[in-house]
Amino acid sequence: MSQKFNSRVYVTLRPSVLDTAGTAVESGLHQLGYQGVENVRIGKYIELSITAANKEEADQQLHAMCDQLLANPVIENYCFELIPVEE
Amino acid sequence: MSQKFNSRVYVTLRPSVLDTAGTAVESGLHQLGYQGVENVRIGKYIELSITAANKEEADQQLHAMCDQLLANPVIENYCFELIPVEE
Repeated sequence: MSQKFNSRVYVTLRPSVLDTAGTAVESGLHQLGYQGVENVRIGKYIELSITAANKEEADQQLHAMCDQLLANPVIENYCFELIPVEE
Repeated sequence: MSQKFNSRVYVTLRPSVLDTAGTAVESGLHQLGYQGVENVRIGKYIELSITAANKEEADQQLHAMCDQLLANPVIENYCFELIPVEE
């Protein structure tokens, strides 16, 4: 029997990597009058459904997907949640 | 007295809007052998710090920022979390 999961993947730039888009957004927000904003970092948020034999396999597959395609491990970190779908 | 909050903003395409990047990633994952993956949707994940008088003001400012700059309300939805920073 296979099980279906909804997953949310968060991909963020490593803290040591300069985030040029984040810097641009921060300066845009300051120009709009939001002076209290700082440390803007922009990442990716990926939603997907995955069908696997069990949670361990889904977890393993998702780690592999992140390493191979969803994130660039050289400059990005990732984390994800797996939520079983009630059927 | 002002208070500092860490915020996480999630910007997603509205369900009715075609997600071409998500479709491309999904087909890429299938080609890599992950056949169990579907409904891939790609959004933005934004981290920022905000200093405001209180949680209500921070909440209000963040809504305005999302409407003005961080999200495109015509095609995107957003939601966010505000976490008070202990000092």
